[in-house]
Amino acid sequence: MEARGSSESPPDQPKRGKSKTPRKAKDSVLKQKSPAEFFAENKNIAGFDNPGKCLYTTVRELVENSLDSAESISELPAVEITIEEIGKVKFNSMIGLVDRERVDEELYDDYETAKAREKRLAKAARNQEIQAKNAALGKKVKEPTPSKGMKGRGGASFYRVTCKDNGRGMPHDDIPNMFGRVLSGTKYGLRQTRGKFGLGAKMALIWSKMSTGLPIDISSSMRGQNYVSFCRLDIDIHRNLPHIHIHEKQEKKEEWHGAEIQVVIEGNWTTYRSKILHYMRQMAVITPYAQFVFKFVSDTSDKSMTIKFARRTDVMPPVPLETKHHPSSVDLLLIKRLITETSKQNLLQFLQHEFVNISKAHAERLIGEMGPEFQPKMLIKSLTDQQIVRIHQLFRQAKFEDPVGDCLSPAGEYNLRLGIIKELHPDMVATYSGSAQVFEGHPFIVEAGVSFGGKDVKQGLNIFRFANRIPLLFEQGADVVTRTALKRINWTSYKINQMQDKIGVFVSIVSTKIPFKGTGKEYIGDDITEIATAVKYAIQQCCIQLKNKIVKKMQAREQQERKRNLSK
Amino acid sequence: MEARGSSESPPDQPKRGKSKTPRKAKDSVLKQKSPAEFFAENKNIAGFDNPGKCLYTTVRELVENSLDSAESISELPAVEITIEEIGKVKFNSMIGLVDRERVDEELYDDYETAKAREKRLAKAARNQEIQAKNAALGKKVKEPTPSKGMKGRGGASFYRVTCKDNGRGMPHDDIPNMFGRVLSGTKYGLRQTRGKFGLGAKMALIWSKMSTGLPIDISSSMRGQNYVSFCRLDIDIHRNLPHIHIHEKQEKKEEWHGAEIQVVIEGNWTTYRSKILHYMRQMAVITPYAQFVFKFVSDTSDKSMTIKFARRTDVMPPVPLETKHHPSSVDLLLIKRLITETSKQNLLQFLQHEFVNISKAHAERLIGEMGPEFQPKMLIKSLTDQQIVRIHQLFRQAKFEDPVGDCLSPAGEYNLRLGIIKELHPDMVATYSGSAQVFEGHPFIVEAGVSFGGKDVKQGLNIFRFANRIPLLFEQGADVVTRTALKRINWTSYKINQMQDKIGVFVSIVSTKIPFKGTGKEYIGDDITEIATAVKYAIQQCCIQLKNKIVKKMQAREQQERKRNLSK
Repeated sequence: MEARGSSESPPDQPKRGKSKTPRKAKDSVLKQKSPAEFFAENKNIAGFDNPGKCLYTTVRELVENSLDSAESISELPAVEITIEEIGKVKFNSMIGLVDRERVDEELYDDYETAKAREKRLAKAARNQEIQAKNAALGKKVKEPTPSKGMKGRGGASFYRVTCKDNGRGMPHDDIPNMFGRVLSGTKYGLRQTRGKFGLGAKMALIWSKMSTGLPIDISSSMRGQNYVSFCRLDIDIHRNLPHIHIHEKQEKKEEWHGAEIQVVIEGNWTTYRSKILHYMRQMAVITPYAQFVFKFVSDTSDKSMTIKFARRTDVMPPVPLETKHHPSSVDLLLIKRLITETSKQNLLQFLQHEFVNISKAHAERLIGEMGPEFQPKMLIKSLTDQQIVRIHQLFRQAKFEDPVGDCLSPAGEYNLRLGIIKELHPDMVATYSGSAQVFEGHPFIVEAGVSFGGKDVKQGLNIFRFANRIPLLFEQGADVVTRTALKRINWTSYKINQMQDKIGVFVSIVSTKIPFKGTGKEYIGDDITEIATAVKYAIQQCCIQLKNKIVKKMQAREQQERKRNLSK
Repeated sequence: MEARGSSESPPDQPKRGKSKTPRKAKDSVLKQKSPAEFFAENKNIAGFDNPGKCLYTTVRELVENSLDSAESISELPAVEITIEEIGKVKFNSMIGLVDRERVDEELYDDYETAKAREKRLAKAARNQEIQAKNAALGKKVKEPTPSKGMKGRGGASFYRVTCKDNGRGMPHDDIPNMFGRVLSGTKYGLRQTRGKFGLGAKMALIWSKMSTGLPIDISSSMRGQNYVSFCRLDIDIHRNLPHIHIHEKQEKKEEWHGAEIQVVIEGNWTTYRSKILHYMRQMAVITPYAQFVFKFVSDTSDKSMTIKFARRTDVMPPVPLETKHHPSSVDLLLIKRLITETSKQNLLQFLQHEFVNISKAHAERLIGEMGPEFQPKMLIKSLTDQQIVRIHQLFRQAKFEDPVGDCLSPAGEYNLRLGIIKELHPDMVATYSGSAQVFEGHPFIVEAGVSFGGKDVKQGLNIFRFANRIPLLFEQGADVVTRTALKRINWTSYKINQMQDKIGVFVSIVSTKIPFKGTGKEYIGDDITEIATAVKYAIQQCCIQLKNKIVKKMQAREQQERKRNLSK
């Protein structure tokens, strides 16, 4: 089974476009889905599981984009996020519907006559009796149906989510594609970023199209622009293209740069309120140089709230740097892509410049090892498929220095400590920042903080996880940090009682590639040894420091005790 | 913020195609990724985490496609799956490379001079001493670097994976797009299927392109065809199109229908062997009407193996039926798609025929409730966006009968029992099949089996999970079945000792939508009440039956004891 070289003959394409009318042939009908359709149908992938989770994920994606944006221009971030509850009347008027009273009451799910209610309660009581008898006799029991009266399906809840930042803004012409075209994005080099798939705001737009049909509003202005771009658009799901309602330049009334994004979606504040607030608090912990204002505007004003997370430092960690790939982590497709995109002419320059940790001398030796048909000066864009496979092979077998962590930007022990103190007000805290390690050719750094005591802290282990400086709030039980803290740290050897003492465990991991288990950026699996080892070590280092302090405190207390006893 | 009606004006598109050359402007460069590129870069999503996992996932995807295919034509499935180890020499000749000896030894990762080895061992010993001392003193310890000598990076391992079945085959013209075009697929109605994203074999092809560059070979023949289609192709990742090397009709030498797929990929048999074999065994448990032949052909013949899973019954469960959507589970986009695709003319017919559980009378009442501008005879394809939102609203609020489970095809208690007995040879087994329940408008059925005892069974709970009749082997700890069995069943009340007795717990869930947590079809989250409740109930029903048998056995034993004592 020989591989043919990269042929230039046009691929054999059936004459079937994105036709929506099914063929009448009795054979299968092949349809082409657009990427937007794919993500709409599989929105769970991106963290849009149920309306409440959709609200949470929309908020987090917008906030994370805003932070990345401000940091990219070395601006101390200031982010305002507002969730405004939209009642049914207001929503209908936004849609352009006449609000209606119910006419045919019995059509509705929450309808129940008084008589039906009596019957239901009586039946439930009888059922319970029968089940108890049957269980005692070991007989099969009629299956219980979940109580539907409790579901409260009064209809959906809608929210306008607004996120305003002081970041980079977007070039005027790019805005429609940046929001209305799935799989369109800025050129991603290899870099530590919060965003992972470039899907964030687009998924929010897709969800708004699925749940409300209302478009997204984007305002943007960049440094040096004397106007504000305003764009209202939705997404044509079939064609995966933006459908623009308005796209204009408006007068810039005040000095501002950044973006303001507004979207109206179905959500559920009641079920996800605590997760959203927890997320904001954790964001403030890990990003103390950013200022956040979070507002919830209720339909009934007694539930409204405003929370300000003030900036606690002007010290911003360095912006993560773009870096080249490590030879051990590249696959054939990536090598081909790098060849296509490189500005370098020949093989020697290509190896030297498109990868980390290949010096000129090293490149020359590698080329020598590849075989007689390889020369340093050969044109990189003329390599055959076989030759590329040979390079790939050698990359896998040869020895390369591990990547250093220079391109990474950890939170920093200073900021970590600040955040922990602000969050928990503990009696004592210890932090540790590890050196760069490697995982599948990607550098990563683990930093940790462990706190002890604190008036309002819950007893036991309180675990806080961060990846590329975003909080991870779900799937805690499966995460490497949780498993390490619960099972692999010998707390008692550090004079810490795992169940009774009030312990905070904060672990932050930064990398050019965070190996999230699923596509919702929710947890890091426990099956990667390098990461688990580094996490354990970092926590242990904090514990060692804490132990000293705890021991000293105990000694001081004992001394006081003795003094008191003597003076009696 | 009014929504505009569905405008027919062409969207405003920037004049940027899928250009690969970056613009020289100092602003951002927007690039359009193809879906194939997206999945290549995020292959973790589809279960292609590391080479060993890639091998596992490739095998499972091909096997599951084969089973779906045979069942779709009501054929008792016969699947042959072969993994052939490809040594370095053979692989190089397949690629068209001249095999080379190493020349510059020191370039290689596993190279170590004798002197370097001595030094390394001495250093490690010294380090350990120092660390022990420092730990005792509570000082900071120099970070341990993971031992790299142990990594054994001799290079990658390659395998040819072949899967042959007796299924439906594929129409000749469709083959290239079915394998070489991501997001292309047969029209998916709502149905219980094993495959979830339509990505399976395409991901294997993408992975082969990333790891070997070799194309995929497909042979196919359908009932009534007098030829065998043969197609060799790979995928043009940038354009997301198949790149065909060969596409021809060959002479059909024997009576056969089905498909045979062959792909050469990087993998790791050593690390994933047990998972792959476990998967095959579980497949045989849940699909006893299918015949499987699994072969591993080793480079060194002592590791080769052939395992035959014979068919144990000719009784095949009914093929899952395509069904319409339930009104409570549709979103705006789906309603619009159904409107676009329907062959029905007016609103009344549309409601009646495109959804389950809307009778003619019910549809008339719903239309009345929608408002004065809605009429039963109004043309469905002329509805405005606002009107569609109104329908959606009413769907969410109105009461509909739950969907029945007629379209589903559970494994069946008979087959479940057969499979459990074959797998564990237990002393006793009890099974239970639940009635259809509902979750987010989708019907689901839970069936369970609990076994007790068995010579080779491990002590404690042995949990086996199935979703749409495929085994789930990963993320066990987070799965609803595991959590229910471990924490929510009061085993002792059924005379079962959770830690010491040898217990098998088999749970199979079928549905038109399995709410997998991640995109690898690995586990079902524990946060869906309806499912957790049904799983618990099914397991309990099995336990009740087992308890009777256990009690009788104990009584019989006690009787024998008494007899023996009397006769003394």
